[in-house]
Amino acid sequence: MMEKKISMAVIRRLPRYYRYLRELLNQNITRISSKELAERMNITASQIRQDLNCFGGFGQQGYGYNVTELHQQIGFILGVNKTQNIIIIGAGNLGQALANHAGFSKRGFNLTAIFDVDTDKIGTKINGVEVLSLENLGEYLEENDIKIAILTLPKQHTQKVADLAISHGVHGLWNFSHMDLEVPGDVFVENVHLSDSLMTLSYHLNKNN
Amino acid sequence: MMEKKISMAVIRRLPRYYRYLRELLNQNITRISSKELAERMNITASQIRQDLNCFGGFGQQGYGYNVTELHQQIGFILGVNKTQNIIIIGAGNLGQALANHAGFSKRGFNLTAIFDVDTDKIGTKINGVEVLSLENLGEYLEENDIKIAILTLPKQHTQKVADLAISHGVHGLWNFSHMDLEVPGDVFVENVHLSDSLMTLSYHLNKNN
Repeated sequence: MMEKKISMAVIRRLPRYYRYLRELLNQNITRISSKELAERMNITASQIRQDLNCFGGFGQQGYGYNVTELHQQIGFILGVNKTQNIIIIGAGNLGQALANHAGFSKRGFNLTAIFDVDTDKIGTKINGVEVLSLENLGEYLEENDIKIAILTLPKQHTQKVADLAISHGVHGLWNFSHMDLEVPGDVFVENVHLSDSLMTLSYHLNKNN
Repeated sequence: MMEKKISMAVIRRLPRYYRYLRELLNQNITRISSKELAERMNITASQIRQDLNCFGGFGQQGYGYNVTELHQQIGFILGVNKTQNIIIIGAGNLGQALANHAGFSKRGFNLTAIFDVDTDKIGTKINGVEVLSLENLGEYLEENDIKIAILTLPKQHTQKVADLAISHGVHGLWNFSHMDLEVPGDVFVENVHLSDSLMTLSYHLNKNN
């Protein structure tokens, strides 16, 4: 697909479009105007048209959007139209919670293994997925097609483990460690810094009080 | 403190400054130039000066920043210089993981209760904090000083429970449900949409391949 350079802000909105379109499909709504979609999403119709035009524009004047098609196209753009293998590194509370998260498999993410250093955890299963020794990470990545690793390990080990994963073919890191990773230019890091997020919330409450 | 109108982008960067300053203090570094801080944080010195000037500017020409003071001031701005009570609503995997998250108490957030509807969970403790019946939420909020609620419950119940919490004095919602909340203007919602975040990562991988 030919694409213009798309801003990060637009990319970040795509999963939200995808979510609302999925809900429309669940309600058997197969056609929607940008105006009506805008009302549901609490944004302007012009914003919607502008965002979706980045990808060639799926709407038709006077008809609106074909929901099935638009949902499918955005899924394609996001790469969630196919199965993607992921692993979790760090089987602590957060790693376990993510392993049990039902939403990921619905979006095509297939958790194939969880890695940890704790011998009590190695060999057990979380949500049906085996916990393997971190020692075997490199070997495992060589033998399996894994592009995405979820990092939920203590921050002092995260950079080293990320380097190892990258050297064995991982190209995307979903980083929950409370630190910033240094990675080569062709690797993408998506950070979820929970404490930062909570502090942002705290700022807004304190500003108002 | 007198403040200019501060952009959301600056606010979102403050927790990161706070984190790096904490690390400097841990290394007994009490004074730092904007240039050196910039190198550590992988941003420009001019960005740092611009960001911190929003709050009156803490640096001194030729001296740099007093790390202790700057850390303290940013903590004050973020409201993490004092203890803030929080509750978790939804004791599923994610709620449990957050209840066990060590980072929050370090930043002054004091988890006082967890709410759920599951009678098997009610009365048990997670990380020393009791799980209470969701039926008692309103009463609990009336009797305790709680401004922040963490929402980790199934999305079909989230809006209703959020409305209830708001009607009993909650002003900040940390929303992990995969939906968008509608709230009054004086209530702040910070969303953590994990699936959206993972899809953003997926987009970048698919774009490159």
